[in-house]
Amino acid sequence: MDKLRLPAPIDAQAVTRARQAAPSDELLAIVVATFEALADPTRARMLYGLTQQPMCVRDLALLVGVTESATSHQLRLLRDRNLVKSQRAGNVIIYSIASSHLAALFREAEYYADHMLHRLPDHS
Amino acid sequence: MDKLRLPAPIDAQAVTRARQAAPSDELLAIVVATFEALADPTRARMLYGLTQQPMCVRDLALLVGVTESATSHQLRLLRDRNLVKSQRAGNVIIYSIASSHLAALFREAEYYADHMLHRLPDHS
Repeated sequence: MDKLRLPAPIDAQAVTRARQAAPSDELLAIVVATFEALADPTRARMLYGLTQQPMCVRDLALLVGVTESATSHQLRLLRDRNLVKSQRAGNVIIYSIASSHLAALFREAEYYADHMLHRLPDHS
Repeated sequence: MDKLRLPAPIDAQAVTRARQAAPSDELLAIVVATFEALADPTRARMLYGLTQQPMCVRDLALLVGVTESATSHQLRLLRDRNLVKSQRAGNVIIYSIASSHLAALFREAEYYADHMLHRLPDHS
């Protein structure tokens, strides 16, 4: 938008407050990439499993109901985005979530979805 | 996968535990649809603004730096997914987040992103 042609805000204070509270572009890019990675039922199921405990590819494949090859593919994507990390234990590779914040994020998403599913009134 | 051909789990208890903790298909569908809606920089910025306070289309457009028409379009998408709600105040429509859980979800996403950005060791 041409800056000269911008309309006046309706509530200038609200815009200023929101601007001050806005995350940096850098932070927002990570937030959006994280949401993108989670916006897939298979990957979401895997990560839900990993929020419970570390798991290997075969067990994740059994949990999610896809092939081990498909599971490995999704795990690589999640590892590239730093959502999971891997560790070798003998001849098995064990995956775990990269951060406890991810478990908290899922918990909040679940509260929210549960709230939507049961159309509860908002607590706020 | 053919059930008869499924390999034995490496850690059967882990698979059982993860299955028991897994969200229902219905809940997971909402979680995934929510992450999808958030996986867009413009929508994420709008929702961040709305987690601060209710805002009208024009002020959201100014905050995010897109046209009011593009802002309205994204708000409709967010309203269709029950992420925001609208209320008329005089001749202005004010949007607000549909649930306080959404603010908590963003807060967790921000903690997580901040953690990733600064590569802090995990707290867990």
